[in-house]
Amino acid sequence: MAKNGEKPWLQLQELIAGKEVSTIMAFLDDMSPTETALTISRLTPADQGQLLGLLTPLDAAEVIEDIHETQAAEIIDDLPPVQAAAILGELDSDHVVDLLAEMDEKDAEAILEEMAPEEAREARQFLEYPADTAGGLMVSEYLSYHAENRISDVLADLQANRETYVDYHVQYIYVTDDQKKLVGVLRMHDLLFPSHAALLRKVMISNPLKVKIDASLEELRNFFEEHQLFGVPVVDEHDVLLGVVLPEAVQEATRKKSVHQFLGVSGIVGGEEFRSMPLLVRSTRRLSWLSLNIVLNVVAASVIAFYQDTLAAAITLAVFLPMISDMSGCSGNQAVAVSMRELSLGLIRPNELVRVLAKEASLGIINGICLGILLGGAAYLWKGNIYLGLVVGGALAVNTVVAVALGGLLPLILKRLKTDPALVSSPLLTTVTDMCGFFLVLGMATAMLQKLG
Amino acid sequence: MAKNGEKPWLQLQELIAGKEVSTIMAFLDDMSPTETALTISRLTPADQGQLLGLLTPLDAAEVIEDIHETQAAEIIDDLPPVQAAAILGELDSDHVVDLLAEMDEKDAEAILEEMAPEEAREARQFLEYPADTAGGLMVSEYLSYHAENRISDVLADLQANRETYVDYHVQYIYVTDDQKKLVGVLRMHDLLFPSHAALLRKVMISNPLKVKIDASLEELRNFFEEHQLFGVPVVDEHDVLLGVVLPEAVQEATRKKSVHQFLGVSGIVGGEEFRSMPLLVRSTRRLSWLSLNIVLNVVAASVIAFYQDTLAAAITLAVFLPMISDMSGCSGNQAVAVSMRELSLGLIRPNELVRVLAKEASLGIINGICLGILLGGAAYLWKGNIYLGLVVGGALAVNTVVAVALGGLLPLILKRLKTDPALVSSPLLTTVTDMCGFFLVLGMATAMLQKLG
Repeated sequence: MAKNGEKPWLQLQELIAGKEVSTIMAFLDDMSPTETALTISRLTPADQGQLLGLLTPLDAAEVIEDIHETQAAEIIDDLPPVQAAAILGELDSDHVVDLLAEMDEKDAEAILEEMAPEEAREARQFLEYPADTAGGLMVSEYLSYHAENRISDVLADLQANRETYVDYHVQYIYVTDDQKKLVGVLRMHDLLFPSHAALLRKVMISNPLKVKIDASLEELRNFFEEHQLFGVPVVDEHDVLLGVVLPEAVQEATRKKSVHQFLGVSGIVGGEEFRSMPLLVRSTRRLSWLSLNIVLNVVAASVIAFYQDTLAAAITLAVFLPMISDMSGCSGNQAVAVSMRELSLGLIRPNELVRVLAKEASLGIINGICLGILLGGAAYLWKGNIYLGLVVGGALAVNTVVAVALGGLLPLILKRLKTDPALVSSPLLTTVTDMCGFFLVLGMATAMLQKLG
Repeated sequence: MAKNGEKPWLQLQELIAGKEVSTIMAFLDDMSPTETALTISRLTPADQGQLLGLLTPLDAAEVIEDIHETQAAEIIDDLPPVQAAAILGELDSDHVVDLLAEMDEKDAEAILEEMAPEEAREARQFLEYPADTAGGLMVSEYLSYHAENRISDVLADLQANRETYVDYHVQYIYVTDDQKKLVGVLRMHDLLFPSHAALLRKVMISNPLKVKIDASLEELRNFFEEHQLFGVPVVDEHDVLLGVVLPEAVQEATRKKSVHQFLGVSGIVGGEEFRSMPLLVRSTRRLSWLSLNIVLNVVAASVIAFYQDTLAAAITLAVFLPMISDMSGCSGNQAVAVSMRELSLGLIRPNELVRVLAKEASLGIINGICLGILLGGAAYLWKGNIYLGLVVGGALAVNTVVAVALGGLLPLILKRLKTDPALVSSPLLTTVTDMCGFFLVLGMATAMLQKLG
């Protein structure tokens, strides 16, 4: 908690300028992780760099742990590679990989070159694994011993390396053979009772539960739902032990995925955006999505341009075009959200197009009729022209069916095409429903133009 | 894993019809939780009820644990209250409360009346606590003993109630005084080393870490980020021990919140929607949000109606109105998403309107100019009329600034008004930006009408 004032970052800024290292540490220790994240994010990049330079790598690593990954990667990216490598040396392996993955390849390589050779080799290897698989989620901080070791060997090693092991979150001891293949597991407290002279292979639980290196996030989620364990060992196709996935990592990855969905449908693409980022980066990233959108909009609007004469003859219709565009988009996006949710829960399979079509089309017909009557009724009441009501209401009704059905199907189709539904569904949907909606209104109007005038 | 066929629910349906209880259990045991959730969700409500009726309450509870809360609540709601109460008796207290909270108050009350009096009393009490607080997230399945108990008393109790305690996820033993106030804590393995005759108050860790019953989700998240613990005791204002919050519950609640955000911005309100729900329920819930939206649309479109004469004189503008509406909505929604994300991470405080305004307005000016030039240029090239380009481009540029600034501010303002930004931001934003955009285009066009013709 900041002792006084509303803006702890101003206080911290002064402390950094005064290079008051011990006061800085006391100041940061007093804050909750959220407050630390807020305070650090409000410093200038120069101050952020100076702050981490003043702290020991271990203290700097603790600060980095409180900050959101994207922001942490930026700060570390700006440090001299030697200093960055020293700080990364104090973090868990999965955190190191996440941070390096956020950077340019060139910058990450510069830091890797300054890291301890073994750590760098491991990080390079971990960077190869896809993010949402066991390989991408595992840590290398676990304990493993050869099956021919005695309990006394393990206890001696635990004593000797106490300081390194104290940060390991893993609650088990894994047992391997000559080829580093996983053959057994022990819980920590299993070490307490047997004779210290016992061989690990005698006291271990054989054939332990494990997952393959390419296990998907869903498989891992299922694993931890079925087994109340504090970690699962990860092996390659030859059963060689490669790492351990902690249940926290699985939950965190699941959470990240739903944040990503939320940001994607809102048009924030290419990674998270923070207002502390440089203005031009934020602006360019948002524009990249908007410019695609403007092209799609031009395509959709070309339908209106095509029917310009009809519109000139029945100008009242112009009032309804943006409404039909917006309402159809909303109806379709509801269906997109339900499909994406069911996909992420595993309640629908990407090939069940017929089921989704049946479910959404029937809903679309009901909602289409309701909305069509509402809007068509409003149009009729406004101008006293029943044909206007029919055109507007009829077009909205039919277009709602199209939008809802298409919205329900798109995420499944995109998933089968290995495209991210969060990013693509909505722009694609609104373009098609806009074109179709404009075509319905203006096409019907053209057919009964003399009745509308 | 289903042994054969693509549709395990058809197989299960047959087994239910044949009342083959042991085959059913083997069939379900073979499936991952995701597969169980999918399979159960595809049964008819009648089959679901029959299935749970065939299983023992304990087996039924295991099935219920694999299913999404909303769906589980529906299934249980349809059971006879006696049977529902028996199944709930086998679930963790926080799960029971979550399920009851999803039901109508009357249905929940009917089930509560059939539950064991102590369990029902506790569930009623837990239902009072707001969902995203320590009270709403805690479980009552924890171990606590009086400080004057000896270790031998605890060990005897653990032996005697082994079967009950085996499902408790709590790794600690809490120590209380005569008034049930929390005075200490012990890790399980702390029981192993001291003399069995030792009093708990002699061996416990005094003044344990704890949280107040009204601690927020953010406070709990911070707590578990700072302390690597497997649970935190929850106390009232007099330090009386009321329950324990597990870190999993905090992560789950955080995840739920971001799912809720995603569904909210997509117009799925009033709880999650599954395609297994009755058509009319799904349709009505979606319509409730759409009908509000249609009213807002009418309001926005009234600006076009007001300028109908201008539009008739320069019909080309009708092509651009839906585009300006859509583009401004997209720009604004990006800013909404960034604000909601920063709010949820604690990187922005709801009162920092000036900071957000400054950050978004500057971005809005850059993006407005870019998009304005794009769209204005396209308009000019299409019709060869520079004034058309100026009107269309200028309107989009100015409206982008409005949309981006308003989009950034709305979530903060709604948060201060204790309204849910996920549900309200987007419809409110698009109504204002539509009105403003239409007004800008048609107002400017009216001013230079003779140059547009």
